[in-house]
Amino acid sequence: MHKNKLVVVGVGHVGSYVLADAMKAGLFAEIGVIDILDNVAFGEALDQAQATALTYMNNVDVRSGGYEQCADADVIVIAAGPSVLPDPDDPDGEPDRSLLTKTNCQVIREVMAGITRYTQEAIVILITNPLDTMVYIAENEFGYPKGRVFGTGTMLDSARLRKLLADTYCIDPKSVTGYMMGEHGSTAFPVLSHLSVGGIPFDQVGAYLEASADINDPDTVKTKIVSAAYQVLNGKGWTNAGVAQSAITMAKSVLLNERSIYPASTTLRGQYGHDGDVALSMPCIIGREGIICQLAVELNAWEAQKLEESVAFIKQAMRDAETGPEHAPA
Amino acid sequence: MHKNKLVVVGVGHVGSYVLADAMKAGLFAEIGVIDILDNVAFGEALDQAQATALTYMNNVDVRSGGYEQCADADVIVIAAGPSVLPDPDDPDGEPDRSLLTKTNCQVIREVMAGITRYTQEAIVILITNPLDTMVYIAENEFGYPKGRVFGTGTMLDSARLRKLLADTYCIDPKSVTGYMMGEHGSTAFPVLSHLSVGGIPFDQVGAYLEASADINDPDTVKTKIVSAAYQVLNGKGWTNAGVAQSAITMAKSVLLNERSIYPASTTLRGQYGHDGDVALSMPCIIGREGIICQLAVELNAWEAQKLEESVAFIKQAMRDAETGPEHAPA
Amino acid sequence: MHKNKLVVVGVGHVGSYVLADAMKAGLFAEIGVIDILDNVAFGEALDQAQATALTYMNNVDVRSGGYEQCADADVIVIAAGPSVLPDPDDPDGEPDRSLLTKTNCQVIREVMAGITRYTQEAIVILITNPLDTMVYIAENEFGYPKGRVFGTGTMLDSARLRKLLADTYCIDPKSVTGYMMGEHGSTAFPVLSHLSVGGIPFDQVGAYLEASADINDPDTVKTKIVSAAYQVLNGKGWTNAGVAQSAITMAKSVLLNERSIYPASTTLRGQYGHDGDVALSMPCIIGREGIICQLAVELNAWEAQKLEESVAFIKQAMRDAETGPEHAPA
Amino acid sequence: MHKNKLVVVGVGHVGSYVLADAMKAGLFAEIGVIDILDNVAFGEALDQAQATALTYMNNVDVRSGGYEQCADADVIVIAAGPSVLPDPDDPDGEPDRSLLTKTNCQVIREVMAGITRYTQEAIVILITNPLDTMVYIAENEFGYPKGRVFGTGTMLDSARLRKLLADTYCIDPKSVTGYMMGEHGSTAFPVLSHLSVGGIPFDQVGAYLEASADINDPDTVKTKIVSAAYQVLNGKGWTNAGVAQSAITMAKSVLLNERSIYPASTTLRGQYGHDGDVALSMPCIIGREGIICQLAVELNAWEAQKLEESVAFIKQAMRDAETGPEHAPA
Repeated sequence: MHKNKLVVVGVGHVGSYVLADAMKAGLFAEIGVIDILDNVAFGEALDQAQATALTYMNNVDVRSGGYEQCADADVIVIAAGPSVLPDPDDPDGEPDRSLLTKTNCQVIREVMAGITRYTQEAIVILITNPLDTMVYIAENEFGYPKGRVFGTGTMLDSARLRKLLADTYCIDPKSVTGYMMGEHGSTAFPVLSHLSVGGIPFDQVGAYLEASADINDPDTVKTKIVSAAYQVLNGKGWTNAGVAQSAITMAKSVLLNERSIYPASTTLRGQYGHDGDVALSMPCIIGREGIICQLAVELNAWEAQKLEESVAFIKQAMRDAETGPEHAPA
Repeated sequence: MHKNKLVVVGVGHVGSYVLADAMKAGLFAEIGVIDILDNVAFGEALDQAQATALTYMNNVDVRSGGYEQCADADVIVIAAGPSVLPDPDDPDGEPDRSLLTKTNCQVIREVMAGITRYTQEAIVILITNPLDTMVYIAENEFGYPKGRVFGTGTMLDSARLRKLLADTYCIDPKSVTGYMMGEHGSTAFPVLSHLSVGGIPFDQVGAYLEASADINDPDTVKTKIVSAAYQVLNGKGWTNAGVAQSAITMAKSVLLNERSIYPASTTLRGQYGHDGDVALSMPCIIGREGIICQLAVELNAWEAQKLEESVAFIKQAMRDAETGPEHAPA
Repeated sequence: MHKNKLVVVGVGHVGSYVLADAMKAGLFAEIGVIDILDNVAFGEALDQAQATALTYMNNVDVRSGGYEQCADADVIVIAAGPSVLPDPDDPDGEPDRSLLTKTNCQVIREVMAGITRYTQEAIVILITNPLDTMVYIAENEFGYPKGRVFGTGTMLDSARLRKLLADTYCIDPKSVTGYMMGEHGSTAFPVLSHLSVGGIPFDQVGAYLEASADINDPDTVKTKIVSAAYQVLNGKGWTNAGVAQSAITMAKSVLLNERSIYPASTTLRGQYGHDGDVALSMPCIIGREGIICQLAVELNAWEAQKLEESVAFIKQAMRDAETGPEHAPA
Repeated sequence: MHKNKLVVVGVGHVGSYVLADAMKAGLFAEIGVIDILDNVAFGEALDQAQATALTYMNNVDVRSGGYEQCADADVIVIAAGPSVLPDPDDPDGEPDRSLLTKTNCQVIREVMAGITRYTQEAIVILITNPLDTMVYIAENEFGYPKGRVFGTGTMLDSARLRKLLADTYCIDPKSVTGYMMGEHGSTAFPVLSHLSVGGIPFDQVGAYLEASADINDPDTVKTKIVSAAYQVLNGKGWTNAGVAQSAITMAKSVLLNERSIYPASTTLRGQYGHDGDVALSMPCIIGREGIICQLAVELNAWEAQKLEESVAFIKQAMRDAETGPEHAPA
């Protein structure tokens, strides 16, 4: 008997929003909440459980517990581990996500060990940063079936890209098609060669619509997207609304077997000249079995170069994870 | 004080679905229902009113009445007049929408006269066929403010196009970007030069995804879309689900001022060499003021030719409307 | 692997609305459509499939076919068979649902035979009239597991009751708690002893809120509800919006295991002095296993008498089904 | 021209959830965000704005700014001011909301002064604690039109009550009708004389359904509800999900003029022997004009006594607000 069951691991700033969005998705009969702080998991589940008694809400059976809740889960979202924090010495600067790497490698290994004691069936969606390193570990160290573990990746970066275009031309972001690829973080890059606004290619939009700002070249676009992320982070102290919604959108595509194409982070298996050595985001078809297909879209010269820079950055983060940045020569 | 009020004119097969979709949109506080058959309008409104007492439903104030209901409407959807019917002599053939023209010209003139007695503020969305001729009359004979009257046009044909691509490649149609232009009907044509699947141009998709059918050339695609329409028509006797949802999607973009880009039918004002002589569908930005902007996207040679064929077809329908097809030389 | 799959049997006026509501529920990954007219089932499924390519829609896999579609269904809704029609000789009068009985007994037996060739797991929700007789046959002649077959019953009559109260006091029907019991049809009766408005018992509401009409005694309320049904029927020629939404609301309670209390029609097993001889509606707890519990609420003298009248009416309809009303003495 | 515009004042733990829920309500075209920390308001608005570029989301125009955003707002939700915090000396005990009173009186006066510089039209919904004192100030010191300012009050406490009953009998809380009255806080009391489960009065439910715990007397129920609140607070450190959803549910009833009956906090005008001296929660009809009607339901002896205890508690909090608890005699 199926369950329409979600488990959320880690209910800090991000996971609590994943939980809140999931409660309203109208899709889940059961939601399990896991956190290293049992009382926080308990409090979050109880707060949401009480809200089910309000008009329009579904009677979702939401409760906290341990990893045994994963045994009959359809989807598991991992938002465990500390978040990127603004740099106290330079609050307007770019925090370095890789500083979190060592801590969160440990977190993800514990979480995946917990999950795999109970299931290899559930589709696992990771949010924890640095995302691509976390995905690589989760996907390659636990024998989990291929395609069933992936990360939200540049799903959020891509939303920021579409919103940037939408704001520039004063239109609905749903009318913009496009995505970022590579690392989820500051080396993500816009794939402008595949972006369109109402079907009009990126470099021709200006002929039809007045732009409120100059976004003509890809470096400018890339810089503005990175900046948009840090504006949120430095404004409110964390980011959660967009990434939580990203995870739930992907979970919906899984549970309803929608086969939607979304950018997701997963280990490369021959794409772009990489085979099993790095995980990053490219457009993927997502359905009931997780990632069904990775679409290694053709890149132009600028994009291909940015992809390699992104790969290099992720690999360095992965090395840092093993040896620690403190071993770098002074 | 605003109302969040919709009026539906004509609740036959199509209008009753517009009403049903509107009741569940969670967006309308009031819905007025008008039909030439008062008892049908009354019955439809009452059936829907009773359904508001079920779980999850909004308390929409839905009732039937006359055109006075338009006075404080935000949006009016016109689905009045008889529909295209299957040809009794050739039920698998293509019915000719233009046969309806004379009857529905009269219908639309009566409906617009009724509406304009009470408002020139509401955004008016037409569904009645032959759609482009109806739009031309509504837009040009009643002094209604520019942009505030338009037709669902090729919104539905475009959905069929995306669904065709989605089925061919076994993916979510939401991952297909693209539209049909021209007449809403058998001369509508796919703008494949602006279509993409997950950002991949139409002519390159086959390199990434296996196709379940051959859809390589535009004539094949065009034929399949026309066929898809008549399969519905000849199967169930009418089409309503898709076009009703199209109208409500546009109404939502209006009421929430989304500025979404959707194909809509409206009179050309200089686009593609036509000025005030014909209405047809092209991508438009739709917001609180109706059509804010028409996007006359660049067409390739095949598309440009199909546009002219579509214009010629619509103009003939408009002439038929005035003189009647019976005056054509034998 | 679960499917989140619905099958709709019979897509006439009612079933087509069930299908339309289900497409928008955001809950179903697959929907199968069955109709005695294959082309109608095909056309309905295709129309809805095309609508999935519009904004906001889920990529539901909707298609037509035979009963083999039931093999992996979670929920099956039966809306097959002809509907109650207005009496041509007395269009404002009350049509007699029992006239349909013989025809629809045959229909339901065929449908249940088709379903049980493939599943005894799915929860089956009946809408076909005369409802209680149909439920009795479906529940008792095919060895289907107890609780897994039931009818929408007085779910719609109850919505009409709450809407009547809401209109009388100019409030949201969601703020009225109450239901009708007994036959789905003209002998259904309001259980005013268990009705409240904002928690205020029926007979005290007038002390708090001004009534727009006199609804003080139960016979008046009962008459108005029956009349409300026939106003819809005689207005538009059929009723579908409310009953379709009723079925989908129940299906949601099943799929999400909500354990909501809704009036549903099912065979009595000791309640009110009847054991296995009649099916009728009383409040039931509905969850993933279907009807989990029937709540035989205490009735006052008027209600108890109306229950017996309703039982007598249903039993006569059941007898008519076997022998035919033509055997009645002249 | 209407706007479907919401303004959220204060985006801490509670206000940020109000914002998140509002973004997904499908009802708002514009949302303004105000916070004493401009950068937090900016970051919250930007995070949500980026999320609008994800599938299924409306293109809500969400941005931060000052009180000028209230000028054309339909609804304003106030969640400003610090929250109740767990008592550091007794984390499992009951924190005293009145300790917050002096601080938040100041906050609410500043917020209301800001709002009333721009509008007396918008419906204002307060969440800030101690809620009833805040409502009293907002409603009585600024000449705001009667009914247009009210508090979420015992809307959340009532959800907890229904959830308690639902858990006790293992059913959907939507099948429980009932509410808490009085103070939003530890003196709120359940109105069990008006509570029903599936239409069955509170004291008879046990005859139909097996209870998983003993909740027979009102003091036990009251204690369990207060405890449920503090379990959330002491578990996660604050409560936000339930109260945010409460505010949005009320805002929806306003914007769609639903006339739903919800418990809301507002100044008494003759009810229960109080006239203008205290604000507390009782069932109210809520529509486009705010509170249309207060329903002073009849209370039994226990309930009447608890109401007076709640009044006394609120009045003491109001006195503390003026003089400060430090002036109490030693």
